[in-house]
Amino acid sequence: MTQQASLAALQERVAAVNDVLNAVSVLTWDSRTMMPTDGAETRGLQIATLTRLARDLLLAPETEKALEEAERATEGFGQDAAERRMVQQTRQAVEHHKRVPVSLIQERAALRTVAQAAWIDARSKSDFAVFSPYLARTIALSRAYADCIGWNEHPYDAMVSIYEPGETAASLKELFTTLRAGLQPILDAARARPQPRSDFLFRDFPEEGQRAFGLSLAERLGYDFRRGRLDTTVHPFEVSFTRNDVRITTRYNRNYLPASIFGTAHETGHGLYEQGVDAAHTRTTLATDLVGLYAVGGTSFGAHESQSRLWENHIVRSQTFWQRHFSDLRKHFPDQLGDVSADEFYRAVTRVEPGFIRVEADELTYDFHIMLRADIECALMDGSLAVDYLPEAWNAAIRRDLDLVVPDDARGVLQDVHWSTGYIGSFPTYTIGNVMGAQVMDTLCGRNPSLGDAITAGHYGILADELRTRIWQHGRRFTRDELLERETGRPLDPGPYLHYLRSKYAA
Amino acid sequence: MTQQASLAALQERVAAVNDVLNAVSVLTWDSRTMMPTDGAETRGLQIATLTRLARDLLLAPETEKALEEAERATEGFGQDAAERRMVQQTRQAVEHHKRVPVSLIQERAALRTVAQAAWIDARSKSDFAVFSPYLARTIALSRAYADCIGWNEHPYDAMVSIYEPGETAASLKELFTTLRAGLQPILDAARARPQPRSDFLFRDFPEEGQRAFGLSLAERLGYDFRRGRLDTTVHPFEVSFTRNDVRITTRYNRNYLPASIFGTAHETGHGLYEQGVDAAHTRTTLATDLVGLYAVGGTSFGAHESQSRLWENHIVRSQTFWQRHFSDLRKHFPDQLGDVSADEFYRAVTRVEPGFIRVEADELTYDFHIMLRADIECALMDGSLAVDYLPEAWNAAIRRDLDLVVPDDARGVLQDVHWSTGYIGSFPTYTIGNVMGAQVMDTLCGRNPSLGDAITAGHYGILADELRTRIWQHGRRFTRDELLERETGRPLDPGPYLHYLRSKYAA
Repeated sequence: MTQQASLAALQERVAAVNDVLNAVSVLTWDSRTMMPTDGAETRGLQIATLTRLARDLLLAPETEKALEEAERATEGFGQDAAERRMVQQTRQAVEHHKRVPVSLIQERAALRTVAQAAWIDARSKSDFAVFSPYLARTIALSRAYADCIGWNEHPYDAMVSIYEPGETAASLKELFTTLRAGLQPILDAARARPQPRSDFLFRDFPEEGQRAFGLSLAERLGYDFRRGRLDTTVHPFEVSFTRNDVRITTRYNRNYLPASIFGTAHETGHGLYEQGVDAAHTRTTLATDLVGLYAVGGTSFGAHESQSRLWENHIVRSQTFWQRHFSDLRKHFPDQLGDVSADEFYRAVTRVEPGFIRVEADELTYDFHIMLRADIECALMDGSLAVDYLPEAWNAAIRRDLDLVVPDDARGVLQDVHWSTGYIGSFPTYTIGNVMGAQVMDTLCGRNPSLGDAITAGHYGILADELRTRIWQHGRRFTRDELLERETGRPLDPGPYLHYLRSKYAA
Repeated sequence: MTQQASLAALQERVAAVNDVLNAVSVLTWDSRTMMPTDGAETRGLQIATLTRLARDLLLAPETEKALEEAERATEGFGQDAAERRMVQQTRQAVEHHKRVPVSLIQERAALRTVAQAAWIDARSKSDFAVFSPYLARTIALSRAYADCIGWNEHPYDAMVSIYEPGETAASLKELFTTLRAGLQPILDAARARPQPRSDFLFRDFPEEGQRAFGLSLAERLGYDFRRGRLDTTVHPFEVSFTRNDVRITTRYNRNYLPASIFGTAHETGHGLYEQGVDAAHTRTTLATDLVGLYAVGGTSFGAHESQSRLWENHIVRSQTFWQRHFSDLRKHFPDQLGDVSADEFYRAVTRVEPGFIRVEADELTYDFHIMLRADIECALMDGSLAVDYLPEAWNAAIRRDLDLVVPDDARGVLQDVHWSTGYIGSFPTYTIGNVMGAQVMDTLCGRNPSLGDAITAGHYGILADELRTRIWQHGRRFTRDELLERETGRPLDPGPYLHYLRSKYAA
């Protein structure tokens, strides 16, 4: 077989896996936006079957044969040649899935169904004890899963590696120490200042106007509606079915305007990343997470979050943005915002106020919520924290970091869906996204002085072009740290993030 | 292996095929209702991959092994035991797909893409010559396909058997002869009468009101929105992703009210069939067309159409329906329908007026459009009609049957999408649906005299219960003719259909 033919044979196998995983994404999107209520059970079976087929395709003897030939064919290629990366990523995924027995996958899937129901029940009763046995089992199976995958220093390393390759319990501990030390004085300074007026955010904002503004916002940031759409859902998300069909979702709170605006900006950031992946990577490993069995173009959860947070916080939650665009928003809500100035609006949407709920947290307190969860996950995985003591550990951390007393489990340890779905190890990627977003933004602005002027002038296409060239187009070709090294000259560095928060909130 | 275990093993294989085919249906529904324009190309690849995987699953050695064991296990079962049927249907599908080489499937798929583009181009130019070479190739590949499947008397038999098992070129010829003879005098009588007033149907009917009435109409007929939804599309269709998620679509013509009303009634009829399949059949061959590789609960295209036409024509296009419900419709359009009576509305929506376009045809001329197409397909398949002479043959038939002169190819031979997508042999099922719908309705009303009163009183649940018990619940367990024999005591019989049309249009 020629070099080209053996690569093509492997690519054909990977393309089929990508097609199946994109189909899973369509089924998932549909289940969260369109599906009638009673369709849930059989939809779950369909998704399970497709996911199993994707894994079977990956572990089939035909793939192994194609892979071995492609490995020989790319031996002479450069380390970061796209072809070599594709072959390496396939090999890595094959070895990963070989190590995890089907029985464990089935056990985890079965647990997920009952654990989610138990979590919903527990949260409605605000009683952690109802969920506790299911979480204990989730941790036990996660530990078994980590042991299958393999780890050196800490079992949490294996779980984190699925979402954020390169990060470990130790690297996260170091990052969190720096962040806590840097964040605390900024938070203290912000809390010492009087609260701005924010009453107008809670007026009556009909969905129609929110949706119209959201659509214009996404378009303004560069989101391409010929390759996307914006729908309504309960828990907003972005999902892509190749770069040609990237969908975002939001929710409209009639009595709290910021939720849909910043939610839409956030998901638009994710969407821009996926729409910006090089067309040549379509249906390859460079647009498929073969380890996580998820068709995605972003190179890690943290890298993805860096783009959503960059657009949401550095652009849309900035003073210059509202100085320029507040009048557009007011056109949609002339009565509700008639007595509000652009600066008042900006100050209201950037006010700092520690609270119990992560998804409602401001920029300064958000990372404390994340670090708390990551610390807990880490301790649960190594057994240093028993599930039964989780509420106490949670409440103590909220007290220590935010000076708040958690009133009940529903507003504490039971607030997030993640653990009930078996996700252990993904929380840290939210904070990594914040850090990476600021680091990239800092470098881009430093390198190109006209970028700041363009943004101030409301021309976001220049920023999008920079990000597309430097990050989006590569898809999964480079790891997160490789991207950072290439573009910023160093690995993940919390300095620019703390600097950004300091100038925004403590100046 | 025990009897039960070997059946379960086969069922597991079939369930996976069903899951994949339902996923294909979700992807197809999405592509026709939700997908952004640029998503089409990769979506097509995804659907092709899933369809191929479904076929691979069916032809895998594991399926053959499970099938052989299940065949032994069900030898002693009754001929129409559900288990035996499931095994027989799987065997039949396996043998069918074994006979069709992958190369032919790929050739047909590749042709479909270019043929559809050529048809769109040809139709916009109203020039059959642009499409002609693609149709010639489609016929050649259909002939090759028919030869793979096998046929005795006529190659068209093989194509028709995919959509309507049991029908042949000969049986259709006989049916059409009876129908033509019976329809002509009814049509002549109807045309001899003065045309009723219909100007009000073409007034301005905003989509919102049409949609609200359509939703209430579907619900009134018994469609369950916890297991379904109604969306907008260009070419309306119904599709199910198991009985728990059955979706219907319609289109709203702002200046022609009947399109959405009767279109929605039609798709609701299809939807009721799928929602009514026994839950026990979910993910089995009794809810999967393993030959056509399509997850569907209805036993044939004709049987499916019988239910949609029954609800559309016998119920919603009836005088009693509008006597009872016209006031509901007028509530949505008080200005547009203020000067119209229920009887005027009924007469307008049942007026007879031969035209060129099949999808706009009335009840009396519709079958002439279908028979024309079936005759042509049959003649193309056996070579007695060359593709080049198709427009002449078409135009001559329209002249003979409807006394109209076709003005151009766009309003003649190029009007339907079917042939460009490779569908040869499905047209006759529309007329079979009309015939079967009337035959079933006639028997039900004859057997249960209170049914007519219930329908007149607007209680459609009794009819739905009857149809569910007698037809829907069985899914694909019985063939169309078995259903007819069981319920009406005889095979397909055009008598009741002609009787129904005569009393409606020539009384």
